[in-house]
Amino acid sequence: MPKISKKGLAMPESPIRKLVPFAEGAKKKGHKVYHLNIGQPDIKTPESAISAVKNANIEVLEYSHSAGFESYRNKLSEYYKNHGLPIDNQDIIITTGGSEALLFAMGSTMDTDDEIIIPEPFYANYNGFSTASGVKVVPVMSSIEDGFALPPIEAFEKLITAKTKAILICNPGNPTGYLYSQEEILKLAEIVKKHDLFLIADEVYREFTYDGFKHYSVMNVPGIEENAIMIDSVSKRYSMCGARIGCIVSKNKEVMATAMKFAQARLSPPTYAQIASEAALETPQSYFDEVITEYKDRRDTLVNELNKIPGVKVAVPKGAFYCIAKLPVKNADDFAQWLLENFNYNGETVMVAPAAGFYSTPGVGLDEVRIAYVLKKEDLIKSVQVLKEALSVYKG
Amino acid sequence: MPKISKKGLAMPESPIRKLVPFAEGAKKKGHKVYHLNIGQPDIKTPESAISAVKNANIEVLEYSHSAGFESYRNKLSEYYKNHGLPIDNQDIIITTGGSEALLFAMGSTMDTDDEIIIPEPFYANYNGFSTASGVKVVPVMSSIEDGFALPPIEAFEKLITAKTKAILICNPGNPTGYLYSQEEILKLAEIVKKHDLFLIADEVYREFTYDGFKHYSVMNVPGIEENAIMIDSVSKRYSMCGARIGCIVSKNKEVMATAMKFAQARLSPPTYAQIASEAALETPQSYFDEVITEYKDRRDTLVNELNKIPGVKVAVPKGAFYCIAKLPVKNADDFAQWLLENFNYNGETVMVAPAAGFYSTPGVGLDEVRIAYVLKKEDLIKSVQVLKEALSVYKG
Ligand SMILES: Cc1ncc(COP(=O)(O)O)c(C=O)c1O
Ligand SMILES: Cc1ncc(COP(=O)(O)O)c(C=O)c1O
Repeated sequence: MPKISKKGLAMPESPIRKLVPFAEGAKKKGHKVYHLNIGQPDIKTPESAISAVKNANIEVLEYSHSAGFESYRNKLSEYYKNHGLPIDNQDIIITTGGSEALLFAMGSTMDTDDEIIIPEPFYANYNGFSTASGVKVVPVMSSIEDGFALPPIEAFEKLITAKTKAILICNPGNPTGYLYSQEEILKLAEIVKKHDLFLIADEVYREFTYDGFKHYSVMNVPGIEENAIMIDSVSKRYSMCGARIGCIVSKNKEVMATAMKFAQARLSPPTYAQIASEAALETPQSYFDEVITEYKDRRDTLVNELNKIPGVKVAVPKGAFYCIAKLPVKNADDFAQWLLENFNYNGETVMVAPAAGFYSTPGVGLDEVRIAYVLKKEDLIKSVQVLKEALSVYKG
Repeated sequence: MPKISKKGLAMPESPIRKLVPFAEGAKKKGHKVYHLNIGQPDIKTPESAISAVKNANIEVLEYSHSAGFESYRNKLSEYYKNHGLPIDNQDIIITTGGSEALLFAMGSTMDTDDEIIIPEPFYANYNGFSTASGVKVVPVMSSIEDGFALPPIEAFEKLITAKTKAILICNPGNPTGYLYSQEEILKLAEIVKKHDLFLIADEVYREFTYDGFKHYSVMNVPGIEENAIMIDSVSKRYSMCGARIGCIVSKNKEVMATAMKFAQARLSPPTYAQIASEAALETPQSYFDEVITEYKDRRDTLVNELNKIPGVKVAVPKGAFYCIAKLPVKNADDFAQWLLENFNYNGETVMVAPAAGFYSTPGVGLDEVRIAYVLKKEDLIKSVQVLKEALSVYKG
């Protein structure tokens, strides 16, 4: 029997995969399960996107340009410029989700056994993309104690070797909700310039910032035009995760020419999804204002309610729609399974993502969970109530 | 300045990319350019697919299951069974085009520096996917003299090393149009079993066979269930290349579990495209009968016309919609550029794909071009007329 690749064996499973059968079990028992475990928003997709697809007149559904519709790239460049980002048409390649943009970025900048430094906890699929690209993740620890702020720059410096090719940040962060300050971004800029590294910034949650904090993009940093690569996506911005449209952005011509070769090999990004994404650019500001208000409200509710539970510690998120909560349990993995398998409060239970899967260092974050506040307020309140009752009886 | 990866530098350019500016130049001069260079059919996408998207009622465009809609996989399994292929729901993962299925297949079965044997000439993007996967392509030569039939099995056997993990075939072939016989497939089955290799069969043109020849799938070969991986796509079958839907199919549970980890990392295939692809399964047989009749007609026209040109040799395609033609020129690359840059016949010229880009062995196929018969008959006749006039004056 032929053998699976070592790379394939090393590919990580999704951190919540193990829990899925238990969630199904809970539903079979008739329990209602609140899904706090995934970043699938319940927000409506803008009407402009939906109706553009409905009204598209297509006779032959053709391949598009490998870099995506030219019209879409033009409008996207305008959108960025309106948001203060100096990004031209030719700095953009449209990809199949931010996911593919991450793969193109890694493939264009790193070879087998090269190293990428990533503050942990981080978006779990960075592990998958790194493994698929043959790249080694070198984590640098950030901590719930200071809300997952940027680790001291010396901590990065200590980890840099001849094999280090890039630093990858997620801003604002999934799973931390942390928003890097301009000062922190400038520190990173200095170190990537000094060591000739790429700075890959996953900014797919850029619009989601609260309390008046403003997002500061790597595309705004003077002097690192050759180092900076931005990853973006329509998935969260317009609550259209199923479209599968994102982009890779850089001023570095060599990076773009190389990413373009990856793009050409896979032919083109999906056409219907590009139609939706191009039309979504017309979404009025009022849509975002409402969505941000809604998320801020949810965040406040979640954090308030969690803080009422004895022994629970939360890092208050400044952006995105996730937070990490430290629970008074030894093993959050076990607790998450127990919640689904053995617990219910008035016929209801919750599914959370054990945070260990977001750390690359083994044995860290064992008492933490990630909570996505993608449910409406009433449901969040009920969910936290369930958590509270559960913690009071759990003997893990 | 940070450096591009070696892998990125090694990523091949599309074989026709160099010609694109010359095609644009010809159009600027007001010349009509017949595109014989790409596999983008002009056939209409089935109405069922288009209207399913128009009628979809979506409020939140959500991620789908990472393996694709369950309903789609169920119906696709039925479709295969109706076509004599014993493929179950769980043997299928829906991918973003056959392109992504090829990447998943390589990633699941091969590590850096592993080798994959591919009969050449082959679909040029196999080079890109192999480079992206760190895999080394080992070509085995097939020849226009026998219509690009399977090379003798001893030729494969000679190339097998400890690093060989798979044989990749395209059936029917792009760019050759060759359809492997059952006997040829059985020979391949024997060798992959003997050496514990995977047999990856790219069958995206399966429906396109002519002259009563019947396609024989690797999924029909008894005894190689653990070795066979099939790649499929809706792109050509329903002329919906822009959807970006394909699939990876195997009975090997380890392969599927591994491919699933790649699938989970990138979250899901595009939702609108899945709606279209699921609905396309209802396309009546009459659609295919018409399409096949049309392509057969085009093929006959093309081959007849080409055979009238002195010094031109064509391998008559039994399937797909491409053929390789040997031209009485030293350098088809130069000739193709000259056609666009310096030639026109009554204001018209043609764009062809130089075949050297489909060979992995350097210096081979220099006098060959690939012609896609994706244009209507009248245009094919005019195109070949242009070629004929061009060859009579070209002094390359
Ligand atoms: C931080 C981060 N980056 C990238 C992605 C990928 O998203 P997509 O491929 O849908 O654009 C996600 C999705 O959850 C994410 O959370
Ligand atoms: C032989 C072959 N395989 C795979 C593909 C990939 O097609 P897609 O990704 O559109 O399914 C093509 C496209 O032309 C092809 O010719």
